[in-house]
Amino acid sequence: MQTAILLFQCADQKGIVAKVSDYIFKHDGNVVTADQHSTDPENGHFFLRIEFYIDEAAHSKMSLERDLVPIADHFKAEWKIYYKHEPLRMGIFVSEPDHCLVDLLYRWKSGELRVDIPFVVSNYEGHRGIVEQYGIPFRYVPATKKDRRENELLDIICRDSDFLVLARYMLVLSGGFLKKYGKDIINIHHSFLPSFKGADPYSQAFDRGVKVIGATAHFVTEQLDEGAIISQDVENVSHRDGVSDLERKGRNMEKQALARAIYDYIDYRIIKHKNKTIVF
Amino acid sequence: MQTAILLFQCADQKGIVAKVSDYIFKHDGNVVTADQHSTDPENGHFFLRIEFYIDEAAHSKMSLERDLVPIADHFKAEWKIYYKHEPLRMGIFVSEPDHCLVDLLYRWKSGELRVDIPFVVSNYEGHRGIVEQYGIPFRYVPATKKDRRENELLDIICRDSDFLVLARYMLVLSGGFLKKYGKDIINIHHSFLPSFKGADPYSQAFDRGVKVIGATAHFVTEQLDEGAIISQDVENVSHRDGVSDLERKGRNMEKQALARAIYDYIDYRIIKHKNKTIVF
Amino acid sequence: MQTAILLFQCADQKGIVAKVSDYIFKHDGNVVTADQHSTDPENGHFFLRIEFYIDEAAHSKMSLERDLVPIADHFKAEWKIYYKHEPLRMGIFVSEPDHCLVDLLYRWKSGELRVDIPFVVSNYEGHRGIVEQYGIPFRYVPATKKDRRENELLDIICRDSDFLVLARYMLVLSGGFLKKYGKDIINIHHSFLPSFKGADPYSQAFDRGVKVIGATAHFVTEQLDEGAIISQDVENVSHRDGVSDLERKGRNMEKQALARAIYDYIDYRIIKHKNKTIVF
Amino acid sequence: MQTAILLFQCADQKGIVAKVSDYIFKHDGNVVTADQHSTDPENGHFFLRIEFYIDEAAHSKMSLERDLVPIADHFKAEWKIYYKHEPLRMGIFVSEPDHCLVDLLYRWKSGELRVDIPFVVSNYEGHRGIVEQYGIPFRYVPATKKDRRENELLDIICRDSDFLVLARYMLVLSGGFLKKYGKDIINIHHSFLPSFKGADPYSQAFDRGVKVIGATAHFVTEQLDEGAIISQDVENVSHRDGVSDLERKGRNMEKQALARAIYDYIDYRIIKHKNKTIVF
Repeated sequence: MQTAILLFQCADQKGIVAKVSDYIFKHDGNVVTADQHSTDPENGHFFLRIEFYIDEAAHSKMSLERDLVPIADHFKAEWKIYYKHEPLRMGIFVSEPDHCLVDLLYRWKSGELRVDIPFVVSNYEGHRGIVEQYGIPFRYVPATKKDRRENELLDIICRDSDFLVLARYMLVLSGGFLKKYGKDIINIHHSFLPSFKGADPYSQAFDRGVKVIGATAHFVTEQLDEGAIISQDVENVSHRDGVSDLERKGRNMEKQALARAIYDYIDYRIIKHKNKTIVF
Repeated sequence: MQTAILLFQCADQKGIVAKVSDYIFKHDGNVVTADQHSTDPENGHFFLRIEFYIDEAAHSKMSLERDLVPIADHFKAEWKIYYKHEPLRMGIFVSEPDHCLVDLLYRWKSGELRVDIPFVVSNYEGHRGIVEQYGIPFRYVPATKKDRRENELLDIICRDSDFLVLARYMLVLSGGFLKKYGKDIINIHHSFLPSFKGADPYSQAFDRGVKVIGATAHFVTEQLDEGAIISQDVENVSHRDGVSDLERKGRNMEKQALARAIYDYIDYRIIKHKNKTIVF
Repeated sequence: MQTAILLFQCADQKGIVAKVSDYIFKHDGNVVTADQHSTDPENGHFFLRIEFYIDEAAHSKMSLERDLVPIADHFKAEWKIYYKHEPLRMGIFVSEPDHCLVDLLYRWKSGELRVDIPFVVSNYEGHRGIVEQYGIPFRYVPATKKDRRENELLDIICRDSDFLVLARYMLVLSGGFLKKYGKDIINIHHSFLPSFKGADPYSQAFDRGVKVIGATAHFVTEQLDEGAIISQDVENVSHRDGVSDLERKGRNMEKQALARAIYDYIDYRIIKHKNKTIVF
Repeated sequence: MQTAILLFQCADQKGIVAKVSDYIFKHDGNVVTADQHSTDPENGHFFLRIEFYIDEAAHSKMSLERDLVPIADHFKAEWKIYYKHEPLRMGIFVSEPDHCLVDLLYRWKSGELRVDIPFVVSNYEGHRGIVEQYGIPFRYVPATKKDRRENELLDIICRDSDFLVLARYMLVLSGGFLKKYGKDIINIHHSFLPSFKGADPYSQAFDRGVKVIGATAHFVTEQLDEGAIISQDVENVSHRDGVSDLERKGRNMEKQALARAIYDYIDYRIIKHKNKTIVF
């Protein structure tokens, strides 16, 4: 028995759940959990995530997908079926700050993050030791603001990754890069978006005298810091906290928010819709 | 069009969601949202909450319920259908501390809590003014530890309420009382259960020197402070907080935790199962 | 014995604490608690709050103040001495939304907020009942965006209040008004500043798809929503929360953040410095 | 210029702050920050932490300490002076679970925890690699419940450490061990104490159906899980979280609560008093 996850979305209309759950029943699937959301029952958009046990011997992935096609066509739906035992391949980009990198590698090694990590790309060669020690290929690409070496990056990542994580990667990726890669990219921004976009958010927060700071994991889009938000973490601060205290507290939050976003992503709990996310 | 909510639970098995959603589809219902939970896909217990739009003119409550019977029988399920436009009747018991009472009355008047309040019962007559000013019948029952006047209380509440809220009611209700009333009773306990059961939890918390305090809304059972937990609220404290500070912060948390529990309860989001709750 | 509070600030330099605490000692004062903060020990600004027991019979307020003058002159300091038994007079401005008003009145009546409330001013006459029932003078001033009636407001407030609270007052106060009033004004903004300044912050937050929302209590300055932040409250939200859910959760946070700001303010724990606050 | 920290405690009485700050002033010290706390201004206990800049060339540690003796004698006070540039030596004990160990080592290496780590002791040899790679001596002591090898442990730790951290060390230390070591030991307990003492707290929390879980850093005493609490961390959970989810969320909290406790401890912000802590 395998655990499969179906993500399904279409214009909201009657009978979607009935048809889809009947389809699962007819393939002897047993629903473990299901989540639905509609932006509006009148003319809204409908999202469905169903996790179910399935006998792969009796129902191949191919037959499962083939039998869903007429239902999806009927509702004009987008959909995809994933299997828990087929981990996603998560590429990592990182610049010099290593707290998120170290955190992700540890969570991966301890079995908490069930992904494959095909490579870590960095424009800081100092990470080679820690990465290779985990048995993960390290690719040093000395990208800079002037020469972002995007073609070199694309050569490394396009075939070998299902999604990318920017674990504090300090260079902006161009619209062309995003289009060519064509898959999801998750970034951790070190502020409580939409506050303090751009550079040095902790200094901005210090200057404004806020009493709570945050970190935000979001999907990357061409507009910097404008992508759909996945998760946010917050912590109290006071007049006793200088910029370096905010940065220290911030590193904690960044690790938390990014790890939680990835955890939900690889469990297929996140659906992007316009500039927002549904996180089931 | 009305909004109906179906709560459905049974031993976990294949086809539940398929059958139930087919049933809703055949009654022209449109699923707004649905939540499921299984304690274990192998031999566990399954819980379902479906909120759907339904045309009451075409499908009366009676026919809706009648048509569900064979499905429920097939799965040996317990179930109930509720309608959003038929508010529950929430009785309130309160002793002298009035912060939860005042908070609930205000939330009710401002439309946030869509319930009817058939009565407020208190063993403290001083609340009469505030209660009657909201147009709610006030029943003074001078119950004490020695004479809890439970028969008098039962006369007031049994017919006229769908559930009870103990908004800081300081007397224990007997097992006999609970059995005779037979409906849900929600209590707010002024600690982070299971810590600091019993009397004076804030003094206990102060003496122990905890750095976080809490409040817990839970269902009432014969075992004091052992009922299924619905919601918990927490707040940081420090060495600067004396017992009266803990009480002040506590009043805030009690209001929050109780209001949230009631909010979810009257939206039919809470299912009790053994000594736990599912809160969809 | 009375409890006095000294607030003292000046350029940071050696010996401030020594001189000031010697002064208190020589007046037979017993320090209950003291807090200090320096923005930078080299060329920074220094803030001091000392709460001490004092025998008013032996040392009148006048003599206490007189004896502090040479010390303050020596350090070129600003300072003020307050007494706990002399409550501040807190004026309230409120428009139609009444959740903060009701919350403040209840906290005041229950003894949690030790202030006098000389008046509640509103451009919504519907609040008269609740205000007068607490025995507080209600002043209806039908101010609008076109005619803010600021002179009328100043006539009411200037003599009779020590500070103002805007408990959801929907009209901007002019720079001229602020200058003429000349005392502190605390506002509650219904967003996590600096995010979502201006109108309809909950709709803005919904549109941006944030996962955490907030409320901010701050001092009022001529620049709307730019004043020094006193306290912020946050709560998690998800795709299941519509605008009205954000507003409901927001009302809770607004009450919390505003009450905490006032609680600290009337305990003389807040010092404004440039566009920030020290909250001891 | 060095930064010195004075911790000072005695029965509360008049003039303590005056005398102590005069003493600092006379040694040309410049107060950076100072915190005070009194359990009760009448017959309570008084705690003082002063952080000040001092010219070590002009005032040696020995002269500083010598000149404080008469003041301390006068108030019958306990006190100690620390210097920021003299880091404490933090010994680590750890059993098989490595999340706290890895977290502490990383924070240490990145400069966030300014301590020396003279050794890591473990009854699990598998940690040798990670520890030695950081250049820290690893001592494998195969202690078990039957043979806790406490003399062997004492030989390793007594001379070389200023305090110990039990970063998930699964064996109880005897009263005799604690007495012989005689210095502070900080433990991380994987529950929100005083809830769920003893073994398997996450299973206990799951069985009780709590909606919030926690972790607690505390000083070790002979009574298991009864020592003074330093810091606590909490996180929301729901019916969707199984025991392994609680454990995963718990690992996060354990790292946070322990790191924060150590961070405050090595900054000399924590004073133990009876079974409680003051955390300035």
